[in-house]
Amino acid sequence: MTTGTRDRILEEASRLFHRHGYEATGVATILRAAGVNSGSLYHFFPGKEALLVGVLERHLNLLDPAILGPAEEATGDPVERIFKLLEAYRRALMVTDCTRGCPVGNLALEVGNRTSEVQSLIDGYFSGWARRVHRWLDQAGARLPAALDRPGLARLVLSVMEGGVMQARAAGSLEPFDASVAQLRHYMELLEETARRERGEPSMPAGAVHEAGPENEEAPAGERSAWRAW
Amino acid sequence: MTTGTRDRILEEASRLFHRHGYEATGVATILRAAGVNSGSLYHFFPGKEALLVGVLERHLNLLDPAILGPAEEATGDPVERIFKLLEAYRRALMVTDCTRGCPVGNLALEVGNRTSEVQSLIDGYFSGWARRVHRWLDQAGARLPAALDRPGLARLVLSVMEGGVMQARAAGSLEPFDASVAQLRHYMELLEETARRERGEPSMPAGAVHEAGPENEEAPAGERSAWRAW
Repeated sequence: MTTGTRDRILEEASRLFHRHGYEATGVATILRAAGVNSGSLYHFFPGKEALLVGVLERHLNLLDPAILGPAEEATGDPVERIFKLLEAYRRALMVTDCTRGCPVGNLALEVGNRTSEVQSLIDGYFSGWARRVHRWLDQAGARLPAALDRPGLARLVLSVMEGGVMQARAAGSLEPFDASVAQLRHYMELLEETARRERGEPSMPAGAVHEAGPENEEAPAGERSAWRAW
Repeated sequence: MTTGTRDRILEEASRLFHRHGYEATGVATILRAAGVNSGSLYHFFPGKEALLVGVLERHLNLLDPAILGPAEEATGDPVERIFKLLEAYRRALMVTDCTRGCPVGNLALEVGNRTSEVQSLIDGYFSGWARRVHRWLDQAGARLPAALDRPGLARLVLSVMEGGVMQARAAGSLEPFDASVAQLRHYMELLEETARRERGEPSMPAGAVHEAGPENEEAPAGERSAWRAW
């Protein structure tokens, strides 16, 4: 019984938990999908809860290479990395007709408080996710206000993703997800505008914000990519 | 078999689904908790999925009297109503040691895409929630920028709640919930500041936002309640 067998079991269990939920997925279904017998499964996982722990560890191991890394590689602009990350979840919703979003979010609400080990793995996933976004916000430096609570904003970004995914699944439409992300984008724009004022750089004259058209016309060239219509 | 029996079954089923999840709750457990026999249950609900539909209809019926109404009655300030609503979820987290948040959010991720009836009830709940927040944002009138996407901001508020609840449950702490809400508060402050500039009212001088202390010292008296430190 090789590590390959263990990986295959975890891969199929992850896929089935994501599709149907933890409780709704029978061990027999996992065995069939992975093409292994129950002896192999119980060799690696003494019970279904051990399988849940294995699935969560797998998600944690994949967080950097499969989720955060690609967003980081997609652009050098630290603020845009946030929106690249959110775009990846949007794609996942889109290709599944808005039926599947974040697999860890599902498990968090279904079985997240069942044992302290499960809870701590899920918390580790969310904390790792938010910590990386916090790092990107730090990399944005003086583009954002000095007094901004950057770890707090990273938590908001995660809320936007998880809450947007949940609403999109219920609506069967990307609209609530897109609306939440567009509002986050607008918040980031207002923060960048505030930071420009802090630095004493030219900003929109008072009373002219609305009439003067898109704010991105005021953005320095190097920041332009972060400014889109909302 | 009275309506009282039906209500008692739904009340216990709601409570058990909220505590343990839909799949993890056996029908026998619901019968025991409600003190009814299986004949009574099947008289009202031919199967467990009918029970799920009944529970979701109950949540929808309670949305106004138990969730939105109290926030609306707590204050006449339309922007503050949003934060009163979020405070109610914070209290629910607090009294359950961060183990229970939004019962409909749980069902949305566990079984939300199982049938179109279930999905449509959950979407109806979220839409009703966001529609009321949208109404409050409309009531805020010129306190918010004219071009603001108010239905979109209402969806963000719901994302903040659901995403904040999820993270708080994983962390076993209110901190990620509070951080998300504080960021929403700050976004609202920046929106009100933008609206003041649109109206040509005095705002903080360029470059002095950070040094000049809390922005609420600049807020007109009537709006002061909406301005808190973040």
